[in-house]
Amino acid sequence: MSKQTKFLLNENQMPRFWYNLQADLPKPLPPVLHPGTLQPIGPADLAPLFPMALIMQEVSLEREIEIPEPVREVYRLWRPAPLFRAHRLEKALGTPAKIYYKYEGVSPAGSHKPNTAVPQAFFNQQEGVKRLVTETGAGQWGTSLAFAGSLFGLAVEVFQVRVSYDQKPYRRAVMHTYGARCVASPSGETEFGRSVLAKNPDHPGSLGIAISEAVELAVQREDTKYALGSVLNHVLLHQTIIGLEAMEQMQMTGDWPDVVVGCTGGGSNFAGIAFPFIGHGLRGGAKPRIVAVEPAACPSLTRGKYAYDFGDTAGMTPLTKMHTLGSQFTPPGFHAGGLRYHGMAPLVSHCKELGLLEAVSYNQVECFEAGVLFGRNEGIVPAPEANHAVKGAIEEALRCKREGKAETILFNLCGHGHFDMSAYEKYFAGELTDEHYDESELAMALAGLPSVPQPA
Amino acid sequence: MSKQTKFLLNENQMPRFWYNLQADLPKPLPPVLHPGTLQPIGPADLAPLFPMALIMQEVSLEREIEIPEPVREVYRLWRPAPLFRAHRLEKALGTPAKIYYKYEGVSPAGSHKPNTAVPQAFFNQQEGVKRLVTETGAGQWGTSLAFAGSLFGLAVEVFQVRVSYDQKPYRRAVMHTYGARCVASPSGETEFGRSVLAKNPDHPGSLGIAISEAVELAVQREDTKYALGSVLNHVLLHQTIIGLEAMEQMQMTGDWPDVVVGCTGGGSNFAGIAFPFIGHGLRGGAKPRIVAVEPAACPSLTRGKYAYDFGDTAGMTPLTKMHTLGSQFTPPGFHAGGLRYHGMAPLVSHCKELGLLEAVSYNQVECFEAGVLFGRNEGIVPAPEANHAVKGAIEEALRCKREGKAETILFNLCGHGHFDMSAYEKYFAGELTDEHYDESELAMALAGLPSVPQPA
Repeated sequence: MSKQTKFLLNENQMPRFWYNLQADLPKPLPPVLHPGTLQPIGPADLAPLFPMALIMQEVSLEREIEIPEPVREVYRLWRPAPLFRAHRLEKALGTPAKIYYKYEGVSPAGSHKPNTAVPQAFFNQQEGVKRLVTETGAGQWGTSLAFAGSLFGLAVEVFQVRVSYDQKPYRRAVMHTYGARCVASPSGETEFGRSVLAKNPDHPGSLGIAISEAVELAVQREDTKYALGSVLNHVLLHQTIIGLEAMEQMQMTGDWPDVVVGCTGGGSNFAGIAFPFIGHGLRGGAKPRIVAVEPAACPSLTRGKYAYDFGDTAGMTPLTKMHTLGSQFTPPGFHAGGLRYHGMAPLVSHCKELGLLEAVSYNQVECFEAGVLFGRNEGIVPAPEANHAVKGAIEEALRCKREGKAETILFNLCGHGHFDMSAYEKYFAGELTDEHYDESELAMALAGLPSVPQPA
Repeated sequence: MSKQTKFLLNENQMPRFWYNLQADLPKPLPPVLHPGTLQPIGPADLAPLFPMALIMQEVSLEREIEIPEPVREVYRLWRPAPLFRAHRLEKALGTPAKIYYKYEGVSPAGSHKPNTAVPQAFFNQQEGVKRLVTETGAGQWGTSLAFAGSLFGLAVEVFQVRVSYDQKPYRRAVMHTYGARCVASPSGETEFGRSVLAKNPDHPGSLGIAISEAVELAVQREDTKYALGSVLNHVLLHQTIIGLEAMEQMQMTGDWPDVVVGCTGGGSNFAGIAFPFIGHGLRGGAKPRIVAVEPAACPSLTRGKYAYDFGDTAGMTPLTKMHTLGSQFTPPGFHAGGLRYHGMAPLVSHCKELGLLEAVSYNQVECFEAGVLFGRNEGIVPAPEANHAVKGAIEEALRCKREGKAETILFNLCGHGHFDMSAYEKYFAGELTDEHYDESELAMALAGLPSVPQPA
């Protein structure tokens, strides 16, 4: 018998429902507050930004939410995604642990992002929306929404952080290939963008500014809505297909995870792999340790404050309670662009507060070291974001080695690094260093958090 | 019932044998000639370059050649590869034809090349080889051999055409990630490289020169062999796993191809999809039309001469009978780097002479147009090479539309375009033009073909 490496599901084993962790939480999420009144908002308050179907998912307490057939049809282009046993990596580490990884890089965009881009495009199209606007940093999310828009006949407009727009023309070319329009942010196309440019015509942009521009445009036009690639409950919901598939696949292996590891920026790929396992534990099933790995240079879960904050720089979004470094905090320019966000998904933050997960942070260079070790043994070059999960899994495997424990480790390899080879190039040239934020800037950003009376 | 999009095989349905077309040919391949004596060569003549297992595959007349388990174990990282029905593309074209495509971009290197890189690394390792040297243009092949070498513990050295080395640092970074050494060719590391640099220190390099350098190095050291990514019989043999899987998958669809389409440079991905179907026809099965699509700027099958020629520029390789533009012919600098080779695989050439396949050529811009149409409908951005197959399939589908025929078209999508987005960027900027070779240069290269007496 050969050692099995890849665990595949048939198309008819693909989950028919997303899993909503809110149904199983021992304590409900704190309410979302209106930025003006500081009062809890209702579905209608979000209607200028999102279609009602997504708003209802945002607040739903139903455990299972059906995946519509047209979404499943697109998912089938790459889903069910494979689960691998990392035999070679185990051997290289000399660990008694079994390491499994779920691989989301098989999607057309090369990451997990299309898992939510596709249903977001679908639900918008169903409600007559003609155009979606969004922001993107490095471009993973913009690419995914462009892909989804092209399949459902929606125009897609992407505000890309200018420094990425200039430095990463290839991601932009992918968005163009899918027919999306891509604008460098800050742009002259919005009032907020013009106000930023008036102060500094060479402003490099930021994710917070790009969000503000996209939101401004979305609320202006009846046929246009906004789409966000992480953080929100409905985004995390869509990503649970990762963990739901992984649970089926772990049953095929005959093992069950003692530890589940994911990297966290906004929180969506982490929630995707982790929430189904957390829910399983809350309903009386086995409770694996859940480990969120974040960049040391942007450590919202490990160094941020659990407080109400804005999602964007301009303060146009509702206030959500989350682990945050402060919406005025600017993360340093490390290469895992998908993890450079000041806040953490409210649901992930809530789980941290409830003791349902652990958080740990690693520096840039050690994460690239881990990614290269992984690539040389498993053949897949991970995205810089995914390197954090790889690092987290390797550390768990080395702990098992020290403790002589044959634990089972599962992690989410959320994307491949084919668009990020310039970062690897710098790594091999010895030019990659750890990035550090300024402690006084963090203190200032935290001091500047909006003052919100404790809700009932 | 939903329309099925993806047809997957289980791991245990992955072929256990490669298919050797030589077993079913009505007329054997012309012999390979020694470049000095012009006499047919025997296995021993190739021993300085290749391990004996691969040499025996090169000349084997056995129909089935077993895939060793360690190779199958690595194949399982991405194989069996999916077969898709292109419902959305069919709709966009308004064709009654059914379009299927086999997708090889799911491999860690993003193309079909690892299908042969892995067994080549394995058989070399089995015979005690410590180091493999090879050449690469754009980098697909070098990446794949670097990947395979890392898994079997072989050092890999890649001579990369200097112009690509300088222009495409990302591919190089992937090779480094897999632990390979990458040298710009012409280099100072070989006698031939030094002789080229002596005449022109700024020589941009060519595939033919890089092959000469790799061959020179391989013959010098006992522990070092040479590896080639296309053209040779054993390389085409390894690629037949593509078509063997596709035959299984076509049976799942309930359809059977009337036309099989692939793009051809050296011929390996084309042979991979086509040979199992050609063989099936030769053994009395259904005979689909087989269409080879090549770039109009490097049209070996449609404009070349069927004659004995060298595989490299320096004239160090054996002479094989093939469709060739002449080993001194320099293809213009179009973007499908994997199709920029003066010759065609002898087996593919032989099939053309036997009337077992048709050949057609298209220009660069119309191929990118086809690729963008495909990407917007099917979600996958094809490699520039693969765009030729997409174009060929679309032309067949449009013919079906004109003729009102509901034929079934199968093509091989041999790789994704994530490393080639600069070409797409130029396309969208309107800066991509068709490239043309110089007719007088072609005539001169053809006139310079080696003079070989007709073998018995």
